[in-house]
Amino acid sequence: MNVTLLGGTGDIGEALALRWARDTDHTVVVGSRDAERARERVADYERALSDYGADGDLVGCGNAEAAARGDVVVCAVPAYHLTDTIDAVADSLEPGDVLVSPAVGIKHDEAGAHYNRPGAGSVTALADRAAPEGVPVVGAFHNLPAAPMADLDFEIDADTPVVGDDESAVATVVDLVEAIEGLDARRAGGLANAAEVEGLTALLINLGKHDRDLHDVWVRFD
Amino acid sequence: MNVTLLGGTGDIGEALALRWARDTDHTVVVGSRDAERARERVADYERALSDYGADGDLVGCGNAEAAARGDVVVCAVPAYHLTDTIDAVADSLEPGDVLVSPAVGIKHDEAGAHYNRPGAGSVTALADRAAPEGVPVVGAFHNLPAAPMADLDFEIDADTPVVGDDESAVATVVDLVEAIEGLDARRAGGLANAAEVEGLTALLINLGKHDRDLHDVWVRFD
Repeated sequence: MNVTLLGGTGDIGEALALRWARDTDHTVVVGSRDAERARERVADYERALSDYGADGDLVGCGNAEAAARGDVVVCAVPAYHLTDTIDAVADSLEPGDVLVSPAVGIKHDEAGAHYNRPGAGSVTALADRAAPEGVPVVGAFHNLPAAPMADLDFEIDADTPVVGDDESAVATVVDLVEAIEGLDARRAGGLANAAEVEGLTALLINLGKHDRDLHDVWVRFD
Repeated sequence: MNVTLLGGTGDIGEALALRWARDTDHTVVVGSRDAERARERVADYERALSDYGADGDLVGCGNAEAAARGDVVVCAVPAYHLTDTIDAVADSLEPGDVLVSPAVGIKHDEAGAHYNRPGAGSVTALADRAAPEGVPVVGAFHNLPAAPMADLDFEIDADTPVVGDDESAVATVVDLVEAIEGLDARRAGGLANAAEVEGLTALLINLGKHDRDLHDVWVRFD
């Protein structure tokens, strides 16, 4: 399977690319608005994998080509670029592809981080509105700290909630979550339940501000 | 110290009463709108403690008397009774008392549970608006499953976020949290950050609907 990371050159993109490259046999397609930048980052990721004694199947290209190649397409871009990014690749997506949205809207004030809920209900719902007909959207990876995830020596022991209305698409993403060593998927229902998943990220940021040990915090539900 | 549970006859009230009675030397004051009902429930709690081979210092009375006795007063009532309950006991609270709000507003639809955010910003903020001058409000215990917590054989291994603007009051509540065996307080900042703490409860309910093992779910941040 080809797993594409649009905006795969950013922090969470890097983390997911390295983990999937190491832990799965999938081809990880790293997309960027700048194809040359995507290729440079893939070279960085390959060096990082080699430094960790691992390898993987990675390729870098522009976002549209990356979307065309992907069976699962993760929009690893900030919330304010999400709709633009999906619009820019919409013609490259095919019915049956699965679009994954990990973005969260956060606003900061003197008290801390707050969930900036879009009028659509959630950022994941914004992705769903922007997605072409026949391309289901699944929300996942909203609450993961990119830095320790990109450190392949770090042993993950955490959960990530998954939301979506299309059961087959959700199952595909659950498999992709659980292909990452130590990471477990927790189903939280349909897209209408995405706001509470995204809001958790603001809570995690606030916990990290008050406890250095929680700066890169993971969550376990049990 | 006297720790009061307004609405201490309900599910989360019972859970906190049993844990504090067993795990601390504090007097646990169980309040109810019906003083006789409070005394009956205290008899139930004493029997339960005895069944678990434990004991504790419990007393039952009406909410106003319970509030007057308490150094820390926990509003263990549903969100829709919160303001009324605080108003009804306001004359019994003294400056320096600490008011604790564990209530969360949840609405349910066909998709699942959703955080029903009040116009005040959070339910904890509603408690703060209703509290008398000089009585600081701290948010805590929002995300705890009452049933396993009331089972004293169950070994807790979980976190609860704590929010508040008054550092001394927060420290008092953090100590009360951590006096419960296996439960750790996690500071999440000021009252303005309460919404994300309360919203987590809706996520937990949704997780429980999709995974029987998460029906009574706890959270660990690490």
